[in-house]
Amino acid sequence: MRASKPLLAGVELGGTKCVCLIGTGPDDIRAQISVPTGADSSAILRRIEDILRDWNVVHGPIAALGIASFGPVDLDPESPSYGCITSTPKPGWRGTNVARRLAQSFVVPVGFDTDVNGAALAEGRWGGAKELADFAYVTVGTGVGVGLVVRGRPPCGFSHPELGHIRIARVAGDTWPGVCAFHGDCVEGLASGPAIAARAGQPAGEIAPDSPVWELVAHALAQLLHTIVLGTAPRRILIGGGVIEARPELLGRVRRQLILSLNGYLEFDAVTGGIDTYVIPPGLGALAGPLGALALAADAI
Amino acid sequence: MRASKPLLAGVELGGTKCVCLIGTGPDDIRAQISVPTGADSSAILRRIEDILRDWNVVHGPIAALGIASFGPVDLDPESPSYGCITSTPKPGWRGTNVARRLAQSFVVPVGFDTDVNGAALAEGRWGGAKELADFAYVTVGTGVGVGLVVRGRPPCGFSHPELGHIRIARVAGDTWPGVCAFHGDCVEGLASGPAIAARAGQPAGEIAPDSPVWELVAHALAQLLHTIVLGTAPRRILIGGGVIEARPELLGRVRRQLILSLNGYLEFDAVTGGIDTYVIPPGLGALAGPLGALALAADAI
Repeated sequence: MRASKPLLAGVELGGTKCVCLIGTGPDDIRAQISVPTGADSSAILRRIEDILRDWNVVHGPIAALGIASFGPVDLDPESPSYGCITSTPKPGWRGTNVARRLAQSFVVPVGFDTDVNGAALAEGRWGGAKELADFAYVTVGTGVGVGLVVRGRPPCGFSHPELGHIRIARVAGDTWPGVCAFHGDCVEGLASGPAIAARAGQPAGEIAPDSPVWELVAHALAQLLHTIVLGTAPRRILIGGGVIEARPELLGRVRRQLILSLNGYLEFDAVTGGIDTYVIPPGLGALAGPLGALALAADAI
Repeated sequence: MRASKPLLAGVELGGTKCVCLIGTGPDDIRAQISVPTGADSSAILRRIEDILRDWNVVHGPIAALGIASFGPVDLDPESPSYGCITSTPKPGWRGTNVARRLAQSFVVPVGFDTDVNGAALAEGRWGGAKELADFAYVTVGTGVGVGLVVRGRPPCGFSHPELGHIRIARVAGDTWPGVCAFHGDCVEGLASGPAIAARAGQPAGEIAPDSPVWELVAHALAQLLHTIVLGTAPRRILIGGGVIEARPELLGRVRRQLILSLNGYLEFDAVTGGIDTYVIPPGLGALAGPLGALALAADAI
């Protein structure tokens, strides 16, 4: 079986690190190397190119390359800035064309999408949404990202979904302004790792499990899920990322707050089979992101 | 030309009235009859059946029937309650199977979807989104409905979109609780016709144009559009319905509030060509709803 599967390379450009990997799928990863996502984007892309070229020699030629990047990115093939990271607040990366640059060195089909869309497609191909054409993938880490899959593909109008940046109802009396550079108290401004740390005045990993901060974080994430449920009515929502991985008990709080927020609308439990099987962790765990790049490579063939 | 187009019948079941029509498209509507949507659903459906039967005699046999209904409705063909209106607060209609009942009398293909999805598809087929595969249609009237179109079709997971019921950021200091039976101050609870009337203490049509109520309504609708923009990134948003038709100046306020709310994220103006051509009234005007039923009939063939 293994021999018949094409060899794929993937690059996940994340907010804190870039992960390169080569293989044919989750059960056959030949190598994986991470590079911190510093401000010198040119140097980092050069390092990634070197890794991929070395692998081409060691592991053999790849059939396709997938690039899954933090956003916002330009996904319109007609656009002169196709392949670029656009309005990111991340120093050194605004306007960087990651797709065209990495595609130059390899004469193979190249798939390019957001890191979140990639991860969602990987979950659909290999993970927690394998049999589903309509689902959502949410990641809560440096940012809050949402990958929607509608009839097997992410929606793509003038751009890709960015639901982490919706403005939401706040908990009564909570007026903390949030940390999003664009929106203050959007979901990302309230529930991302940096937001949680800013609110608590200590790294998210050091906050006590019984801190009142967690219920506020769960509320913000539940508001996001409320919107996703009423937006495309996904058949399952996978929610992961660094914050959830570090605090898996958040999942139960988010589920409870979501049920409270929907308040009986849509006969939700009847149609979803219950909240505990509806909102679940990603099947690929922390590998959903890097495998997203491989999924994009596979889709590019 | 006209002779070659199939003759279609449509029934739009709306919150206040049901509109029946027969024809081949917007330029060729042979007849149209409205029936008030009272609480006796059985009597109203009987009246609609009589109208359609009469037309079959007068105008000739129809090639297909389209039914566009207020929601929530069950759109899952595998479900025992397919064709039903589900958890509506509307007296007399909860659990009514409108699709199966109306389909019984006519041996033709039957299309069934929400009134809002139907109107969106009509706008895509004949109206303000003719050349677009990815757009959104918003109607603000008795309720607030959103029809998303992604790659030419409405998303359909476990149900249809119901974005009128998202909970949103409020204007600072505005604590009016809203009127939605499920969510209080969701978009529908703040910006529907009944919500506006309840807040102002007078019918929406009698409220002064310079009342502060309108800016609050515009804010709620702009929050909905903010979410839609970041949800599926539609290439255009059509916004109509009774409230907008009665107060077309709302459109400018919504546009301004949307730009303020997005706050430069996604380089929105650059990719959409500017807010004045991005958020526009429906091309079919008040006929978008009834023509939605015809569009569903056309799609059913």
